[in-house]
Amino acid sequence: MDERTMLGLLADRLPRAGDDAAVIDGLVVTIDMLHETTDFPSGTTRYTAGWRSVGASLSDLAAMGAAPTGAVAVYGAPAFEQEEILAFVDGARDVCEAVGTEYVGGDLDDHAEFTVATAAVGRADDPVFRSGAEPGDAVCVTGTLGRSAAALRYFDRGEAERANELFRFRPRINAGRALVPYASAMMDSSDGLARSLHQLAEASDCGMAVETPLPIDEAVDAVVGPDERLELGAFFGEDFELVCTVPEPELTAARDAIPVTLTRIGTVTEDGITLDGQPLPDRGYTHQR
Amino acid sequence: MDERTMLGLLADRLPRAGDDAAVIDGLVVTIDMLHETTDFPSGTTRYTAGWRSVGASLSDLAAMGAAPTGAVAVYGAPAFEQEEILAFVDGARDVCEAVGTEYVGGDLDDHAEFTVATAAVGRADDPVFRSGAEPGDAVCVTGTLGRSAAALRYFDRGEAERANELFRFRPRINAGRALVPYASAMMDSSDGLARSLHQLAEASDCGMAVETPLPIDEAVDAVVGPDERLELGAFFGEDFELVCTVPEPELTAARDAIPVTLTRIGTVTEDGITLDGQPLPDRGYTHQR
Repeated sequence: MDERTMLGLLADRLPRAGDDAAVIDGLVVTIDMLHETTDFPSGTTRYTAGWRSVGASLSDLAAMGAAPTGAVAVYGAPAFEQEEILAFVDGARDVCEAVGTEYVGGDLDDHAEFTVATAAVGRADDPVFRSGAEPGDAVCVTGTLGRSAAALRYFDRGEAERANELFRFRPRINAGRALVPYASAMMDSSDGLARSLHQLAEASDCGMAVETPLPIDEAVDAVVGPDERLELGAFFGEDFELVCTVPEPELTAARDAIPVTLTRIGTVTEDGITLDGQPLPDRGYTHQR
Repeated sequence: MDERTMLGLLADRLPRAGDDAAVIDGLVVTIDMLHETTDFPSGTTRYTAGWRSVGASLSDLAAMGAAPTGAVAVYGAPAFEQEEILAFVDGARDVCEAVGTEYVGGDLDDHAEFTVATAAVGRADDPVFRSGAEPGDAVCVTGTLGRSAAALRYFDRGEAERANELFRFRPRINAGRALVPYASAMMDSSDGLARSLHQLAEASDCGMAVETPLPIDEAVDAVVGPDERLELGAFFGEDFELVCTVPEPELTAARDAIPVTLTRIGTVTEDGITLDGQPLPDRGYTHQR
């Protein structure tokens, strides 16, 4: 059974599951697991791994419009090298500091494959779910897309420093919180823009008509030609931007409220997910083992 | 560098780390990772794996005297078999229900080794740390010791049903909460009684004099002779009972307040960790890969 189908089945059984994070009485909690073969290409520093894995959980909080309270992690590896662990913790601390929260610790685990589990908790008195989009709302995305996809190309080329820099994304906590009064639905783009649009549309029981140009990061243009641009920008994912829908009359206020660019890429429709009028496939990056 | 030394070093850098769970403004959060080679012997059902892994995080909350708000998990495996995942979720839900909290979901991860990450959050307005024991306090333990050690013997013998039953411990949430007004220091026994005593003593800057008989579970006597009894009961660990210290005058009230047996096993001293007057080594179960 594929992951999406299974997650759908579980969401039916667990009423609080199926969004970027679970909400219980205003408390928001999320957990993620990243590991070497699928998430940390050769050349990823432990500092970047700490930043990125804790950042992934913070991004889930951002997607709910939550204010983070703290984050924890388990560092699993075949050996506990002091320098590597301290670098990991520095990365974890720095990404927390970058969004005004605290990395409060965690645990070590003796694991054959380098594997990291992270959890973050926060508060959202008025969380934004995936399910509130209405036809006519503007479809928007924060920042730019494709940085992680570009990073992988840099890792492949052996340009690890640039790759690590692109891999250390800034979780959109401030944007997520500021969008609470405006966004009708929201999630992060960790599965790629295309898949995120499908997931928002499915949860909201609507369609989405999206148009180019998409806000694709200039790092993408630096590594691929025009023919691969859309693949890296719209399908690859792992970018941790926010994809949201905003009622048309509130769009200007929403843009003014957040500290990053909010690009309108389309409009919520009754049904069908299209890019420039053509069906947009529901596919994303497939992890390769 | 060994795990204990490294965790000590991290506790120095992260002021909220070093206890069973981190506390931030009354919110208690913990994360754990368990995986096939070290935590789920052949014969462990997915139901038991769900129960036990989520239970491990709930036990960390119990050790702080926290009231759980909810728990989440990531299920990592090479294939997503519907029956296995649903059994895992049932186990996770049932252990949460058993202690009056809610399993709220999580994520799936494509992982070569069956690996589970769990996190739990709760509230503790007056958390109990490892650091409050004072000379003269009674050293106590809830329930019985050695059930997980005995379970491993049953797994080895191919008696999986009995083994799974022993593996599904009940997190001591109610006991932990009820001990808040009485316990001066507390942690869970997941690293084994001996190691827990050393850790409490180190955090509290004191010693502990413990005497036999210890409350070793009858399951231990069913699988080993008298010569191995103490090894399984005092060193093996993974039992998730609470080890705590209670001021002598409050011991009776503490016993009356909690829903499980609280056995006094010794007394807090100025220094030295002894069992029947002999030094008790600071060792526990060592995971074998």
